[in-house]
Amino acid sequence: MTQYFVASSLDGFIADARGEIDWLLQLDDGLEDDTNPYAAFIRDVGALAMGATTYEWIRRTHPGEWFYEDRPTWVFTHRELAPIAGANLRFTAEPVPAVHAAMVAAAGGRNVWLVGGGELVGQFVDHGLLDEIWVSIAPVTLGAGAPLLPRNRTTPMTLTSATRSRGGTFAHLRYQVR
Amino acid sequence: MTQYFVASSLDGFIADARGEIDWLLQLDDGLEDDTNPYAAFIRDVGALAMGATTYEWIRRTHPGEWFYEDRPTWVFTHRELAPIAGANLRFTAEPVPAVHAAMVAAAGGRNVWLVGGGELVGQFVDHGLLDEIWVSIAPVTLGAGAPLLPRNRTTPMTLTSATRSRGGTFAHLRYQVR
Repeated sequence: MTQYFVASSLDGFIADARGEIDWLLQLDDGLEDDTNPYAAFIRDVGALAMGATTYEWIRRTHPGEWFYEDRPTWVFTHRELAPIAGANLRFTAEPVPAVHAAMVAAAGGRNVWLVGGGELVGQFVDHGLLDEIWVSIAPVTLGAGAPLLPRNRTTPMTLTSATRSRGGTFAHLRYQVR
Repeated sequence: MTQYFVASSLDGFIADARGEIDWLLQLDDGLEDDTNPYAAFIRDVGALAMGATTYEWIRRTHPGEWFYEDRPTWVFTHRELAPIAGANLRFTAEPVPAVHAAMVAAAGGRNVWLVGGGELVGQFVDHGLLDEIWVSIAPVTLGAGAPLLPRNRTTPMTLTSATRSRGGTFAHLRYQVR
């Protein structure tokens, strides 16, 4: 399956107007909390995709770190980007459907994770290639910023799960898109 | 308590770019569903407030109808608006804090419901007068429209409840603001 796993503000932004996520990082990440879906989610991820903005944010804010082990990772970019040591990277400007087929093959039966951002995920949606959205909603509003999914998609998805993190921070919602 | 009870798209819009909510009305409203919080919510509402856009939307789309019985209702407007028969209305352009005090008094120990829209609710938030947000998230994205709460409010709220409607349509989230 191809999955968009992401954190968002209650008003649907994945980064604030400056491109930052301090509003998210200030919160208890809940990774120790058995209601947090990330541990189970990442175990089944075989390949990743992200946009250039997300990739550069990781490289800038976590120098020398890479969270995704040796999972093959596609970075969609029209610019030349510096690599991150230890990451298994492919930079691409190819159309989403061709890259998606390669990602599925590389994932070897496991899932494909669209890390972000919203516009890249929108292109997967446009091509009918997104199966699930897992969104952890933070208890804040931003009023402006980078949108979760900048598309008018009024064909209803199916909400398969809605849980609350133990401390009352996150609403973890899981949707089936198609 | 003063409560904002509202339905929103997953990306945080309460109306689409044309001001319409067909994306919401197409969904099973779930009022027969015992997981729907509206019945319990409305029972405890003693007074209502809404903006002119919300009021005019009701008057235009539901001629001759009024859903809120004889509950005292304040409509914030700078324009002259036509009344709705059977509704217990006060049109006002007064500042939010003075009107809020009158609403609390009129509610007689029951709650005050901010029906919408987002900018009016934002003014209550600016004055520290909002206690709770109850938001039912519809499984669609709009990409643009009228925002749920057009404010940068990164002081975390507390998520007190997260439930899923029986058919997998709505995520019902309840937040304590202050």
